[in-house]
Amino acid sequence: MITVALPKGALLEDSIQLLQEVGLDFSAFLDSSNRQLQIDDPTHTAKGLLVRAQDVPVYVEYGQAQLGIVGYDVLREKKPQVACLVDLKFGKCRMSVAVKESSPFRSPVELPLHSRVASKFVHCASEYFESLDLPVEIIPLYGSVELGPITGMSEAIVDLVSTGRTLKQNGLIEIEVLFESTAQLIVHPLSYRVNTGGLKTVVEKVRSQILAAV
Amino acid sequence: MITVALPKGALLEDSIQLLQEVGLDFSAFLDSSNRQLQIDDPTHTAKGLLVRAQDVPVYVEYGQAQLGIVGYDVLREKKPQVACLVDLKFGKCRMSVAVKESSPFRSPVELPLHSRVASKFVHCASEYFESLDLPVEIIPLYGSVELGPITGMSEAIVDLVSTGRTLKQNGLIEIEVLFESTAQLIVHPLSYRVNTGGLKTVVEKVRSQILAAV
Repeated sequence: MITVALPKGALLEDSIQLLQEVGLDFSAFLDSSNRQLQIDDPTHTAKGLLVRAQDVPVYVEYGQAQLGIVGYDVLREKKPQVACLVDLKFGKCRMSVAVKESSPFRSPVELPLHSRVASKFVHCASEYFESLDLPVEIIPLYGSVELGPITGMSEAIVDLVSTGRTLKQNGLIEIEVLFESTAQLIVHPLSYRVNTGGLKTVVEKVRSQILAAV
Repeated sequence: MITVALPKGALLEDSIQLLQEVGLDFSAFLDSSNRQLQIDDPTHTAKGLLVRAQDVPVYVEYGQAQLGIVGYDVLREKKPQVACLVDLKFGKCRMSVAVKESSPFRSPVELPLHSRVASKFVHCASEYFESLDLPVEIIPLYGSVELGPITGMSEAIVDLVSTGRTLKQNGLIEIEVLFESTAQLIVHPLSYRVNTGGLKTVVEKVRSQILAAV
């Protein structure tokens, strides 16, 4: 029996649908009355674990889940020791630098030295500005990053953008895309090598499903 | 005009009530139809900023808010450069070590060397186990920390406990209290010293209100 770590939030519905297509039914997690964080697939061939998106790679890294679905953004930020095997194509968004519309800067390289950049993705943000050789001060925030430039605390933000609506509503504009992100199928490397609970078959089914959908 | 950073979540209602008692009305944040993260007090003497609890000390540290209300737990975890002036007494909870009821360990010092401890409060947890001179591996999680022991990923957790209901429902028991936590009034040190926008008067009013309520 394998355990699959599923992310709460934006990727959950598509993740559950994909797993249903390969024969694993965790749709009980979508039931609004469900309070359980662990459920068995009705065929009892797999267990589902419903956790925060950022926690998915933790459970997979420690082998408590052999399989997981998580956004590429989380993998880039946390760099967990997991194998990333299939790009699942859904949950498309991008990691971007944004500034106020009224900002005089239209490219990250134009930002003054030691500018402040607010972000929930402090490693992604640091790495990016280091690659530009531009020293900035990263301000770690947990939510509503757009308040950084609005309150004047930061000149720019690094954040995930999907439709761009939140930026627009807050008078911010994207000036650079760091990378694109989609949902990824990750596995616990050792479990995959020894094929715990027929893990390789599940991964192959997912891969075929994704290829068939293209 | 001063800006007050208010925490979303469990402390919000009591925070708004306290500020109302000292003449600052941010009750509009409690209106379920409210989408704004920044509002003016109706007397236009202060501005309210509604942010994640963990972000409150960030806005105060950078001086974007001169005043903030936040749990002591967040201050212990983040150690921001702010002045903590008044214990507001509400939002009482405790930071505790918990294990499964079936665990053979009934005290943190009994935990085997290199045990795994899951926590959202990685600094509090590390500091505590260092003070015991007990090397453990801290596993950082973002939510549902109780899944650590349940899935077998960790032997123990360090987490905030208020009623203890979540622990009980998940078959966990508290074996040690690290510290008690209540809401705290924090200020931007320089703004306090130069008395920006009559900040000292507001702090004194809050202090009297708290003393009167005891």
